[in-house]
Amino acid sequence: MPISEIIAVGSELLTPLRSDTNSLYITRRLNDIGILVRRKWIVGDEAAVLEEALRLAMRSVNIILLTGGLGPTEDDITRKVASYVLERQLIYNEEIAQRLRDRFARLGRELPESNLRQALVPMGAILLDNPVGTAPGLWLEEGKKKIVLLPGPPREMQPMLETHIIPRLSAAFRGEPILRRIIKLAGIPESAADERIAPIYKGFPKVQTTILATPGQIEVHLTASKTVNPQAETELDQLQDKIEEALQDKVFSVEDKSLEEVVGIFLGMHQGNLAVAESCTGGLLAKRITDIPGSSQYFAGGVVAYSNQAKIDMLGVDPAVIRNHGAVSAAVAEQMAEGVRLRFGSTYGLGITGIAGPSGGSEDKPVGLVYIGWSDMVHCHSRRMQFSGDRDLIRQLAAQNALNMIRCNLV
Amino acid sequence: MPISEIIAVGSELLTPLRSDTNSLYITRRLNDIGILVRRKWIVGDEAAVLEEALRLAMRSVNIILLTGGLGPTEDDITRKVASYVLERQLIYNEEIAQRLRDRFARLGRELPESNLRQALVPMGAILLDNPVGTAPGLWLEEGKKKIVLLPGPPREMQPMLETHIIPRLSAAFRGEPILRRIIKLAGIPESAADERIAPIYKGFPKVQTTILATPGQIEVHLTASKTVNPQAETELDQLQDKIEEALQDKVFSVEDKSLEEVVGIFLGMHQGNLAVAESCTGGLLAKRITDIPGSSQYFAGGVVAYSNQAKIDMLGVDPAVIRNHGAVSAAVAEQMAEGVRLRFGSTYGLGITGIAGPSGGSEDKPVGLVYIGWSDMVHCHSRRMQFSGDRDLIRQLAAQNALNMIRCNLV
Repeated sequence: MPISEIIAVGSELLTPLRSDTNSLYITRRLNDIGILVRRKWIVGDEAAVLEEALRLAMRSVNIILLTGGLGPTEDDITRKVASYVLERQLIYNEEIAQRLRDRFARLGRELPESNLRQALVPMGAILLDNPVGTAPGLWLEEGKKKIVLLPGPPREMQPMLETHIIPRLSAAFRGEPILRRIIKLAGIPESAADERIAPIYKGFPKVQTTILATPGQIEVHLTASKTVNPQAETELDQLQDKIEEALQDKVFSVEDKSLEEVVGIFLGMHQGNLAVAESCTGGLLAKRITDIPGSSQYFAGGVVAYSNQAKIDMLGVDPAVIRNHGAVSAAVAEQMAEGVRLRFGSTYGLGITGIAGPSGGSEDKPVGLVYIGWSDMVHCHSRRMQFSGDRDLIRQLAAQNALNMIRCNLV
Repeated sequence: MPISEIIAVGSELLTPLRSDTNSLYITRRLNDIGILVRRKWIVGDEAAVLEEALRLAMRSVNIILLTGGLGPTEDDITRKVASYVLERQLIYNEEIAQRLRDRFARLGRELPESNLRQALVPMGAILLDNPVGTAPGLWLEEGKKKIVLLPGPPREMQPMLETHIIPRLSAAFRGEPILRRIIKLAGIPESAADERIAPIYKGFPKVQTTILATPGQIEVHLTASKTVNPQAETELDQLQDKIEEALQDKVFSVEDKSLEEVVGIFLGMHQGNLAVAESCTGGLLAKRITDIPGSSQYFAGGVVAYSNQAKIDMLGVDPAVIRNHGAVSAAVAEQMAEGVRLRFGSTYGLGITGIAGPSGGSEDKPVGLVYIGWSDMVHCHSRRMQFSGDRDLIRQLAAQNALNMIRCNLV
């Protein structure tokens, strides 16, 4: 299986402010054509360190991708170091220079002399057009080894990777793609999910199973390679089936859809629409629902009712119920769900009331207590949940569980 | 100035699924005590690669932090490789073994034999207590060099770094802290901000100026070190003053506050409260306002009015105005602001209507067109904005500009 290393260049990547995200994108696309990543380097604008990285990478693998350090300033050392390590002369390329002059002319500006540094390329390099920025990418070969220089800004790097690099690499190495399945779960904690499926995936040692947990959501990623295992596809199918069987309705997507997308699909299937009333989530649920293009088809709208008065005025919650049960109660969650449904004239209504903290909790009703109410033409019910975590996490968990409650009510 | 390298260990960090975030946290805390990071490595669970990294790091710097690979499985190679590179025997530590047994006993489980691997430590290592997980950290010294082994999960790593590592490193190296100032701007594009301040910060070559742009927000980070420049503090003061002077009311915080925090402070100062009516942002604005603990003091609530009917029913927008001007218009934005203020009985009202896309645009009213209306006891006005980008970006820009409009109206 072909193996690669990725070197990210730039002193800003060694501060607490910026991290290298390019390598994740690059890794996904390399994996797609069956190339693994063996090591990643993050180095600053220091020639000696980059030189060491490039020499060692070239000693150990045949595919090396460098991002960053192709700009027009003294600090941009990647071209220089590559030419030095590969023992190639840096040559002035008139084509690049002309393109730079044109680009600046279009912007009505004079090309600064220093920018011509970008026209210096190691001898034998193939220029890779950069439609977005000034720095062209470079493709270098040294025997079997391919060394690729790409600019650092993701919006320049990504299209160049797609257009120039992936096709060339897949022609040169033709690995089997790494196959991937993603099973998404809600309404089950990570430990419980793992307990149910560990005995299953342990029976498939050639499939790599990774469990990723985010608030209120578990993703089971299955990856396998035909190079290592000719049965990869069949094994993935079998493992996925067994996992789905074990987890039943905890599975909300096997097609990499988000929970809000799935909720939208279900609402569409029922030809219904939804309105939501939020207290502690403060708009987060409505925001997630409307993240989906076309959500206006099934989302009527929402009310963020933070105060008791707003719950009474905007949603018709009975003041006596708030007095007797408290604003954070099953009865209020249900009245919010019912109220928002009636006010918006929608098919379904959902209400969330809870204590996100950090203050506002009591012994009786601690921070993290959340009630979620559901209302449709015939039913109105609610669930009590107790979350732990900080304000942000409690709000995320409440919104995620509300979406899952919508899903479960529409199944 | 003391220099360090960070090595992150774990094959999952070489997939498209997970990135090393520990090093950002570590870098910030190292910088705080005057230690720079020179290089970062990300390696898998492959002993030869980790060995090479550790050898090279030890050759080039005196401070090396490794995260990950301290778990109980065969794959967890960090202890073994460290003992090998440092030429120290791995010794069975009864104290760790006992702690592991206690921990499992508390959970009512038997300690698996394999977990005792975690009790093997290189000779001479100082054990660092891990209150959250099973793997203790290790502190190793080799002459002047300090080699630190920390577990990978951030919630285990971070408290151990704080409790054990930062105090020890700052005692051993006593660098001057890297000083930092953060100036946050809204309502100005990155290029315009840079044009205004570049002539200023170029006059302070010993201060490192970094400009970070997120949607609708620019952060100017100034960093300097007393070790390099004894005048660092004074220069930072001067540069910050000059930048603030140049950017005037575009500056919304010099104390690392978010725009929603600043808006909350302003609302509190005016003893007023706010209600918001959102169309295209779909709850994002209310969500950001309520991210702030205590926002119930100044946030009355909101309405997400996605459909025309909701704008009419829930906000009292005049159907004739929608007919004549369209739902995305200055008149509707103003009526939404006015309507939500009256319905919630709040001091201030804000309305957003726009086209987030990807569909719904026309030649007249393209995707990205957004009107934001403002209403208080005496005024009602609106602003027209044209954003470009995808749905997510347009929504972010709309919410950010709405917050900035609130700020500007309350100055």
